[in-house]
Amino acid sequence: MINFETRKQNMEKSHTYYIEIAIEMALENVASGKGGPFAAIIVKDGEIIAKGTNSVTQTMDPTAHAEIVAIRNACKALNSFQLDNCILYSSCEPCPMCLGAIYWARPKVVYFAANNLDAAQAGFDDSFIYQELSLPLEKRSIPTFQLNHLKHNKPFDLWVAEENKIKY
Amino acid sequence: MINFETRKQNMEKSHTYYIEIAIEMALENVASGKGGPFAAIIVKDGEIIAKGTNSVTQTMDPTAHAEIVAIRNACKALNSFQLDNCILYSSCEPCPMCLGAIYWARPKVVYFAANNLDAAQAGFDDSFIYQELSLPLEKRSIPTFQLNHLKHNKPFDLWVAEENKIKY
Repeated sequence: MINFETRKQNMEKSHTYYIEIAIEMALENVASGKGGPFAAIIVKDGEIIAKGTNSVTQTMDPTAHAEIVAIRNACKALNSFQLDNCILYSSCEPCPMCLGAIYWARPKVVYFAANNLDAAQAGFDDSFIYQELSLPLEKRSIPTFQLNHLKHNKPFDLWVAEENKIKY
Repeated sequence: MINFETRKQNMEKSHTYYIEIAIEMALENVASGKGGPFAAIIVKDGEIIAKGTNSVTQTMDPTAHAEIVAIRNACKALNSFQLDNCILYSSCEPCPMCLGAIYWARPKVVYFAANNLDAAQAGFDDSFIYQELSLPLEKRSIPTFQLNHLKHNKPFDLWVAEENKIKY
């Protein structure tokens, strides 16, 4: 019979096991020259259903961060745009883009190893982007403007009126 | 001879022209049942180099927002992971994921038509995600934890030491 404490320890051991896989993948990604020092895996019911490593420079895709690649692969594996009951393990705390993606994909929990300060010391300054997101448009370093257009709400009107839409 | 005011008007007309294309694409995306009411285009030197429409439900990819799809397509077209001197036009204000992607891709300027309030009224509550991003980990609705691991900084150490890395 496994008591509560033993189960808790097994679960903790399990999280460490998965996070170590992500860290080893991140190491291998740098050693092989494939991309930045980041990796993520997605686990459902104790099984690894998807992996992702940073492949920005290899695929010429600035959105190909480890978490995004892992989320895309997991959704393909599940044939779903939602990560119900999935756990995401990342070698590093997600950047704002990846955190946004996590909220759209909705895994049940996220674990990470290194944090944003560790990343910043290696030259990945996510905190700059976090700061920019909280600034009003006119103060951002990438100038961003709203353009008035009479039809600006038409796509939303059509969406609201559409009865057969697939919500996401 | 074109004076300053005329040039300014031409430029303003031009922005309206491109944003209208994005709006029309967003309308078509809903009408055709292909996805959500969002579209984006990327322009370089007056030429549309890439387009993107929301295709989350069609491709089973929660990251397939209009801006992300357009950024990926533009980077493929330019064979670059940076959108130097590009303008991004979106039918709607970017969500946190897309804004993060914009900061990684670094276009020179962003224009959008509808804003986050318009999106929220149609059921797309980006503001919820914006709020979550600013919360400390322990208060977020998707539980997020840092796991201590002795090797947590190894990928960064290797990255910093690597002389032939491609920075991004």
